[in-house]
Amino acid sequence: MSANQQGCLKVDQYPVIREDKEKRLQQRSKVIWLTGLSAAGKTSIAQNLEIELFSKGYLTQILDGDVIRSGISSNLTYTCEDRFENIRRIAEVSKLFINSGIISINSFISPTDEIRTMARQIIGEDNFLEVYVNAPLEICEKRDPKGLYAKARRGELKDFTGIDSVFEPPQYAQIEVHTDQQTVEESVRQILDYLLPMIEYKINKN
Amino acid sequence: MSANQQGCLKVDQYPVIREDKEKRLQQRSKVIWLTGLSAAGKTSIAQNLEIELFSKGYLTQILDGDVIRSGISSNLTYTCEDRFENIRRIAEVSKLFINSGIISINSFISPTDEIRTMARQIIGEDNFLEVYVNAPLEICEKRDPKGLYAKARRGELKDFTGIDSVFEPPQYAQIEVHTDQQTVEESVRQILDYLLPMIEYKINKN
Repeated sequence: MSANQQGCLKVDQYPVIREDKEKRLQQRSKVIWLTGLSAAGKTSIAQNLEIELFSKGYLTQILDGDVIRSGISSNLTYTCEDRFENIRRIAEVSKLFINSGIISINSFISPTDEIRTMARQIIGEDNFLEVYVNAPLEICEKRDPKGLYAKARRGELKDFTGIDSVFEPPQYAQIEVHTDQQTVEESVRQILDYLLPMIEYKINKN
Repeated sequence: MSANQQGCLKVDQYPVIREDKEKRLQQRSKVIWLTGLSAAGKTSIAQNLEIELFSKGYLTQILDGDVIRSGISSNLTYTCEDRFENIRRIAEVSKLFINSGIISINSFISPTDEIRTMARQIIGEDNFLEVYVNAPLEICEKRDPKGLYAKARRGELKDFTGIDSVFEPPQYAQIEVHTDQQTVEESVRQILDYLLPMIEYKINKN
């Protein structure tokens, strides 16, 4: 616990801080933000990344569309305004997880630099690791595991990213994986090589 | 990890589940929901409860008005509708924490049974421990550490709970502490006596 918060507690001070929790968990918390088209492979990477990290002793949490859109953002649509609000809420939730010492693996299309920059600003530069999960639109459309591209082509889904809504390739991603050329395992390995030194718990000696 | 989710992963399945994380943390996750008037003592109890739990090896997270209203609910007001939406979002966030194996200490006035029942339903009966932090209005108004009651009496704060907005004493609280008669330490001890057997990690032997 932080020295100045021991003893008599004042309202609005938190007695157990992020550093305490990171020490307990023996890890540095971080948000790994996977951005990319639908069917680019974000979910597979998120899940395999979680398996790898958990097996190495790290405590993680996956945040993705399924868990967020059925919960905290269940009252939002897919308009431009609501997409922003959705990502804003996700970023705020991620911040709470960071303060609990947890590594959050976020898997969201998050199609524009503006929207990703908002997330980065809320979460904080030092806490944010942006990963571009890159596969060409043609490949994603061919994969189409949920039939969403087909629906969008038939006009049954409006504002579908890559079809009638823009996806801007990230300008600021620290990592880019090419899922049309790499296996999931190779992509996860690439992310881990970058990530592990950042989340390893090291004691600061003064 | 759950047996049926090993090997080839399907989309929308989570490889590391709550049970795995609870086992790793050696605790059962839970939401401790502190309800009561402003200045009833919720924050002091939340903070001292976190200190006690953390010192016993439990991983916790405090959610309260300060952290929520400046973050995920920063775009909400204090109208009846927005209070509901605020508590809904908090409940959804708490659910995410539960799935990470964490013990969430939630400190919110949450003034009506309807609003508390909504939280309980979202979070799930088995995950929810409601604690009524009870102090008479006169005492809370006398304490008034932030001067909010005075402001409300002067008409400078609208819809202030206890003054011009209702507080319904909880019907379903599992624990009631009387902060006008008990010290913070006594209230925390009372909660711990009830809580510790619920969050202790026990191995299920089949």
